[in-house]
Amino acid sequence: MPLPPPERPSQSRIALGVSYNGRAYEGWQSQVGGRTVQDQLELALARFVAQGEVKTLCAGRTDSGVHGLMQVVHFDTPLERDENAWVRGTNRFLPDNIAVQWARKVPFSFHARASARSRRYAYILLESPVRPSVDAGQVGWVFRPLNQEPMLQAAQTLLGEHDFTSFRASQCQSHSPVKHLLRLDIARRGNYWRFEFEATAFLHHMIRNIMGCLIAIGNGKYPASWMSDVLQARDRDSAAPTFPPDGLYFLGPVYDAELGLPQRTPTFDWLP
Amino acid sequence: MPLPPPERPSQSRIALGVSYNGRAYEGWQSQVGGRTVQDQLELALARFVAQGEVKTLCAGRTDSGVHGLMQVVHFDTPLERDENAWVRGTNRFLPDNIAVQWARKVPFSFHARASARSRRYAYILLESPVRPSVDAGQVGWVFRPLNQEPMLQAAQTLLGEHDFTSFRASQCQSHSPVKHLLRLDIARRGNYWRFEFEATAFLHHMIRNIMGCLIAIGNGKYPASWMSDVLQARDRDSAAPTFPPDGLYFLGPVYDAELGLPQRTPTFDWLP
Repeated sequence: MPLPPPERPSQSRIALGVSYNGRAYEGWQSQVGGRTVQDQLELALARFVAQGEVKTLCAGRTDSGVHGLMQVVHFDTPLERDENAWVRGTNRFLPDNIAVQWARKVPFSFHARASARSRRYAYILLESPVRPSVDAGQVGWVFRPLNQEPMLQAAQTLLGEHDFTSFRASQCQSHSPVKHLLRLDIARRGNYWRFEFEATAFLHHMIRNIMGCLIAIGNGKYPASWMSDVLQARDRDSAAPTFPPDGLYFLGPVYDAELGLPQRTPTFDWLP
Repeated sequence: MPLPPPERPSQSRIALGVSYNGRAYEGWQSQVGGRTVQDQLELALARFVAQGEVKTLCAGRTDSGVHGLMQVVHFDTPLERDENAWVRGTNRFLPDNIAVQWARKVPFSFHARASARSRRYAYILLESPVRPSVDAGQVGWVFRPLNQEPMLQAAQTLLGEHDFTSFRASQCQSHSPVKHLLRLDIARRGNYWRFEFEATAFLHHMIRNIMGCLIAIGNGKYPASWMSDVLQARDRDSAAPTFPPDGLYFLGPVYDAELGLPQRTPTFDWLP
């Protein structure tokens, strides 16, 4: 009697690390019209695979105008190619502002979203009397000088597990407003500020809403203690307006080290 | 008897520092069609001045795709406005990838091009198996690893006054191929290389042609001594092909310190 066929006959699960400049796209998630990063990636994969469509699942959707340094996706495919061929073959069909950085064959237990233990983002901010030009769309901008100390105090307030309803967009689809903020670092070099966030997961617009509040504290509009008031209010109307997406970079998900997936994409020194 | 009128009745000479992302433009110099940085600047100035056209003269023309961190221009105007008004007023009419960084009233003896003692450029290069994505159009790219030591040796060969005919584009309009290269620094951080050039003046495509040669030496195609052969040949055909404009930034002209003009535009830490 012959053995039964394997559950997934000749399929592999592939993970890709993808970087992109989000300025030209209506966010990550596929939509009618196809002007999203996911649409571009799946189109390129389909052309490379040349066997019908490829559906990907990502670690964290990004909004319109937000950039990705290491988005991670996975998909299943019957095609057998070595890892470098996936990178080069897909990049051949991608526009110049999106690139696959690496590809790895992963176990079927790997899931780009569910396997992520946490997610990291950075917000890059230009403090200058004059708006950005060379890096327009790639950095946020404030013209009023910021004070680091009150922003650091306010950031402390947010660390740990909290109900982040005050920083949640109305269209947020998360099951719970309770998230665990593991890190919020604030550094400065010359005219540029860098804010780095790490959390188990983020609510929709959470970082951009926190950025709006940090800046309102940094420029003296509110005292550092205001952040705690906003957090405790659990009311979106208590917080500052959503800050623009321009300077926001998805640095990537953090997975178990034993998976051996690359941790970063090469970028300017100032980015991680 | 009344005094004679002043030679330039109620005129002022204004200098502006201008930064721009050159990717969307057909270089600096005005041309039919208006898709140049100078055209955009002069259009914005005319709108602000609201008294007919404004003609500017720049410190150094840049090619299509080359960026400017501190291009300097001057022009004469009967309009009396304070320096901040020139900056804000002009920026209101400029596209988001061009910005006036500063404005200064200067003596009529100042001339943006003729007063410059030297000019500084940087070339930013990504060394990676994968092409740029987030910073596409803003950095050059090599996929083969570069060796710093032979590039530094080759750079030494070029310092000082030389006939740079081998690195001169056929369409170059300079009176003489003899230029004085004051500095050529090569540094590396992570996957990024930074080449900084300073010379009294540059020939057309001189930096991009030198970059092509430095990279051919850095990746082992030629020995360091080849640079001297190329220089001495005084023949464009002896050098490497012109390297792409993507990573080239005009850092700005150097003027006498007593003029008190700003020396730099705020940029990412890695740029000067």
